Amino acid sequence: MTSDKPVVASENTSSTAAFVTPSPAGLINDALPPAYLECDLVIVFDTESSNVPNEEKTTEAIEDAFRFLLAELVNAGFCFKVRVNKPGSVFIFVKASDAIVSIASYRSQIKDWLYGIRTSAPVVPASQGTLGDDFTTAERLRLVHDRLTNAPKDHGLGITPGQGDWVFVKSIFALHDPQFNVAWIKRWSTKWVLDDAELDIIKNTFGEKIALYFAFLQYYFARLLFPTVVGVVAFFFLPPYSPIFAIISCLWCCVFVESWKHREVELAVKWGVKGCSGLDTHRATFKGESEREDPITGAVVQYYPSWKRVIKQFTAIPTALTAGMMLMGVQAIVFAIEIFLSEIYDGPLKQYLVFLPTALLATLVPTFTAFYNIIATSMTDWENHATERTYETAMTQKMFVLNFLTSYMGLFLSSYVYLPFGHLIAPNMDFISATMQRFIGEKASAKNFTINTLRLRQQYIYFTATAQLVNFFVETLLPYIQRRAFKEAKKLQEKVTGACTEAFKDDEVESPFLARVRAEVDFPDYEVGEDYREMVVQFGYLSLFATVWPLAPLISFINNWVELRGDAVKICLDTKRPIPSKAETIGPWLNNLIFLTWLGSLTTSSLVSMYRLSPTDPDCPYLVSTRPWVLLAIVLLSEHVYFAGRYLIGYIYDALDSTVVQNYQRQKYLNRQQTLKRSLPEAEPIETLEHDEIVVTEEERDEWRAAIAEAVVTLKTSLVKNETDKKEE
Amino acid sequence: MTSDKPVVASENTSSTAAFVTPSPAGLINDALPPAYLECDLVIVFDTESSNVPNEEKTTEAIEDAFRFLLAELVNAGFCFKVRVNKPGSVFIFVKASDAIVSIASYRSQIKDWLYGIRTSAPVVPASQGTLGDDFTTAERLRLVHDRLTNAPKDHGLGITPGQGDWVFVKSIFALHDPQFNVAWIKRWSTKWVLDDAELDIIKNTFGEKIALYFAFLQYYFARLLFPTVVGVVAFFFLPPYSPIFAIISCLWCCVFVESWKHREVELAVKWGVKGCSGLDTHRATFKGESEREDPITGAVVQYYPSWKRVIKQFTAIPTALTAGMMLMGVQAIVFAIEIFLSEIYDGPLKQYLVFLPTALLATLVPTFTAFYNIIATSMTDWENHATERTYETAMTQKMFVLNFLTSYMGLFLSSYVYLPFGHLIAPNMDFISATMQRFIGEKASAKNFTINTLRLRQQYIYFTATAQLVNFFVETLLPYIQRRAFKEAKKLQEKVTGACTEAFKDDEVESPFLARVRAEVDFPDYEVGEDYREMVVQFGYLSLFATVWPLAPLISFINNWVELRGDAVKICLDTKRPIPSKAETIGPWLNNLIFLTWLGSLTTSSLVSMYRLSPTDPDCPYLVSTRPWVLLAIVLLSEHVYFAGRYLIGYIYDALDSTVVQNYQRQKYLNRQQTLKRSLPEAEPIETLEHDEIVVTEEERDEWRAAIAEAVVTLKTSLVKNETDKKEE
Repeated sequence: MTSDKPVVASENTSSTAAFVTPSPAGLINDALPPAYLECDLVIVFDTESSNVPNEEKTTEAIEDAFRFLLAELVNAGFCFKVRVNKPGSVFIFVKASDAIVSIASYRSQIKDWLYGIRTSAPVVPASQGTLGDDFTTAERLRLVHDRLTNAPKDHGLGITPGQGDWVFVKSIFALHDPQFNVAWIKRWSTKWVLDDAELDIIKNTFGEKIALYFAFLQYYFARLLFPTVVGVVAFFFLPPYSPIFAIISCLWCCVFVESWKHREVELAVKWGVKGCSGLDTHRATFKGESEREDPITGAVVQYYPSWKRVIKQFTAIPTALTAGMMLMGVQAIVFAIEIFLSEIYDGPLKQYLVFLPTALLATLVPTFTAFYNIIATSMTDWENHATERTYETAMTQKMFVLNFLTSYMGLFLSSYVYLPFGHLIAPNMDFISATMQRFIGEKASAKNFTINTLRLRQQYIYFTATAQLVNFFVETLLPYIQRRAFKEAKKLQEKVTGACTEAFKDDEVESPFLARVRAEVDFPDYEVGEDYREMVVQFGYLSLFATVWPLAPLISFINNWVELRGDAVKICLDTKRPIPSKAETIGPWLNNLIFLTWLGSLTTSSLVSMYRLSPTDPDCPYLVSTRPWVLLAIVLLSEHVYFAGRYLIGYIYDALDSTVVQNYQRQKYLNRQQTLKRSLPEAEPIETLEHDEIVVTEEERDEWRAAIAEAVVTLKTSLVKNETDKKEE
Repeated sequence: MTSDKPVVASENTSSTAAFVTPSPAGLINDALPPAYLECDLVIVFDTESSNVPNEEKTTEAIEDAFRFLLAELVNAGFCFKVRVNKPGSVFIFVKASDAIVSIASYRSQIKDWLYGIRTSAPVVPASQGTLGDDFTTAERLRLVHDRLTNAPKDHGLGITPGQGDWVFVKSIFALHDPQFNVAWIKRWSTKWVLDDAELDIIKNTFGEKIALYFAFLQYYFARLLFPTVVGVVAFFFLPPYSPIFAIISCLWCCVFVESWKHREVELAVKWGVKGCSGLDTHRATFKGESEREDPITGAVVQYYPSWKRVIKQFTAIPTALTAGMMLMGVQAIVFAIEIFLSEIYDGPLKQYLVFLPTALLATLVPTFTAFYNIIATSMTDWENHATERTYETAMTQKMFVLNFLTSYMGLFLSSYVYLPFGHLIAPNMDFISATMQRFIGEKASAKNFTINTLRLRQQYIYFTATAQLVNFFVETLLPYIQRRAFKEAKKLQEKVTGACTEAFKDDEVESPFLARVRAEVDFPDYEVGEDYREMVVQFGYLSLFATVWPLAPLISFINNWVELRGDAVKICLDTKRPIPSKAETIGPWLNNLIFLTWLGSLTTSSLVSMYRLSPTDPDCPYLVSTRPWVLLAIVLLSEHVYFAGRYLIGYIYDALDSTVVQNYQRQKYLNRQQTLKRSLPEAEPIETLEHDEIVVTEEERDEWRAAIAEAVVTLKTSLVKNETDKKEE
């Protein structure tokens, strides 16, 4: 391999780009670095690490760690530049030469090939180590990040922030490309429809995992058009809880989920990541019980028996159930208080007390979630997952139980407890009233209680419309406003206390760029799982309760148009640049979508059969008059129609040919053919075999003729006999 | 390729084996051919073909067709011998040279490789065309059969019996290997447990498809031990319709089906047929709408759009429903007649009339089945399947609907109509009595009617015990006895009419062998689907109704021990030797097993909840007192527990490592590694890359040192500032 000069990037490249025109929105700090500070990744070296006792933080120890880190980088062929971040903390700007990236790329290609992800054999890099024009930023970033963080046996430097030799390494992050970001937001805010080319751009810049999220969101958004139109029609022309709308809605959910499965595969094939789930690097914290040969590669690896992990995973079921029960209990109590306060209670302070339930939920649920999160994390850690992918899946599924309950519990209580059984309260009003008087000295006005028949719809509108709007604000705009305000406050404070950062004043050329780096280092990481969660929960509102208010798809449709752009803005403004990684599937979220579609077949049918017909007794509005066994039979039927439908839809999708997948198989086939040809010793024996030329001598030909003649005699014998037999008859 | 002498096999090989000791049972004709008649396949050339009008059957036309066939064989390098079968019909004994087989094998290996079934590249055959010792009989037979019957573009002669140029070819079949068969039956009839080695022997002799059936049967038999033991315990110690036994039984069904899925994959991997489902030759009758390039191989192929086939397949649903309804109607009417005659009617001829329902079913059901078979066949033909595999699947699924109804309908009627609603008849007895009198002049004795509470169990015992025994007899022994009797009758007849076969008396050495060939040509083909059907229907009795009579698993366990041997005997004595073919899965039968397990979760739970508790009113035995909504709720719950259980069991099986599959992946991996190494231009660059040696000059080393020193200065600046800050605080 070539040894190109590391360490010092040439400083004489034109640095005219350092100051460009301000971004259109004025929101993005688009200061570009001078050429000598251009880098792939930034390592934050921070002496304030809490992992080290203060007495061990001697200047020598810090300097040794710093020197060790730099030496490792240099030995691996990286260039670096160091700049002060803030007191006790420096940035190390790390840049890999093309030669290093091309070696890493080759290695990655080999791995892909060995695991059958690539269809064609890897291309040996040119000796100059130049990268082709089609080499993407995402690929480069991923490879450089892997090179720094992978374990040594996976060809990395093994830099794990905060651990072992790297206690002073706070984080490794990538800098945004402001020019790209500005162009991206500009383009998306003026485009109505996002095509596949846009997805490819995201893939090339942020990697397949992020691109897959945007692909999912875009696909979901586009498919929402159908229920939106149907929903609007249903809202204006069909009676409430219309079975027609319910059936169409359920069917749509089914088709959407099944078709996404195929879309996902097509994208994975197109992006060349089909099969990448099987190729995961080990988690740094994975601890094997013993060492053994990897059954596939033959390398010595840490081994932890999977049956132990399965048993551990099963203990999660009672835990999740307990937590779920507790949360359900909390929600049920709050719900009861709410009903009591809003519809029975009529004492003093009523105007303030009605906010009590909301306040209770707003404090209890996040506390509970945070607590559960701690338990779930420690349980998932304990399960000792070997790869990030299985860890993420296990964690996602544990958290989804809670998401599910917090999102839909209120609606379930309204639909299946309050509305059907609420009328049982009225006859007991005297008792309730008396009890109240004994405890709080106030009387509930017994006449007050009527079931709020609109409650379910009001609640649903709140969840699908109001809450989404609030959520969008909290998620996208609030962090930005917060940061701005915080910055102003800090500036003000510094003015008051006397700016202490004067001590290491930045170079004037570097200053705007360093300001941007200091801003970005404080951004949180982008969590794509959070965005999936949001969309899946939204899908759940549609699949479970769309029949309550047919305009919900419309609201989601509009929301997702904004969400697509909002998430782009969020990545650009509010989070660190995501480190690219590969993904071929939305993984656990797909299972959750299937689960919600299935549950939707139960809730939709039961809601329709319970609330479609206003009961005949006008004194008892929305009292559910459907008999239990009829309701159960309808639900049972609906569920089985759903199963049959899903099976059929899946069958149809499988039967139809996908050009993308066929092309992939064709590539595989051609590649196998090529491999075969290369492995054959002689010239093209496959083609030779096509003809079956057998060289025959004249002598052999005579032998054949004799044999055939003899055979014909035998035949004739049998024929003659046959004729004789027939005549005899 | 070498040109080895075809046509005349040397006749001087020792033919001492022509007469061996008679087989132990005396049932198998074990006459071996003289060496010059040893062959791979026998083609029956029969001039009695009904496809040709009699006036065209001139001796010339027949002779031409015969010569053409022989010439084709000779040109393809086969040896042949012709012997008279009977008047108007001859046998052509066809033998392929090792050279031909080795070329065919190589070609087959190439195809396997191109479709990714083989993990290692094909081995070019030695120029002498000798076959290795590990070359199996099954492989040889399959290749020779393919060579004869495949379409020319699939490297075959395209001999399709009864069609086109081959109207006089009646069949192509393989001869049994009596020595193998005798040894096989001897071995199995003395062995209690059949191990994997036995399966390998079957695979090597009859091919993967037959071996997979025996593997399934053996696996099913072995797994039945558990429910057998539990069932016996339940029978003696638990009350009838015990929920405990019901739950264990359902769970076992689930575990069995899920574990078979894995067993199947393991066998496919072990036998090297994993993925072979994707490699099917076209059906001879498949007609494309247009020609186009195969999207994978690039060859020009007939094309028929899959969406059209899917639409056609959907029309099968109403057809199957209609047929099902009709059959249900027939069975319901017969059932009503049966109840009427056995439990209400008391008029004359009662002792004969009670057999009427059985007689009706025995005539109506087979007629109906035959009729439905015709419809199903023509529908499946119309669907225009491209491959045998999809055709078979489509046909199997259509027939399974009917199998299901004929097998279980009676039990369903008893469980869900007769027993729960039978009591409704009693109050209407006067009306029934009066109606009867009007029509047939006889009075039904109103007091006679009581529900036969034991009916369900009686019926079930009949289906699982009696019917299986009868079935075994009909399937295995009857054909043999029939043939024996027929043969004796024929001999007798020939003696009376004066033996007319004298005209072409066989050579004395060949005579016993030719007698065997003449016997085997009349054997029916072995239909493995029939045997699967039988086992799956039996599994259905267990999964659906085992709770009715817990001894059913015991009966099936015993039955299957015999069945395993019986099927071996059947193949040896009653059917033609099956032409080997590949199979990696039991295919549609697996889906049927899953379906029956699911349905079992519904029936078992409902039967238990309906019949577990004897009702309190003694006048009304087995009247179902469970309230409908309780019943529905229990069924709903049970079904969902089943779904959850299946998911979990599947999850566990997927999580556990399978050594066989891992080895397969390892082979793939190693092979890819080898391919890669071979494709690399330089010597082992993968290994070179492992070390990342970067050659560094002294000058560069100085530069590094300077850069690190500079960086340390920057770090120190920040540290000093940090200290200052802290002191100020």
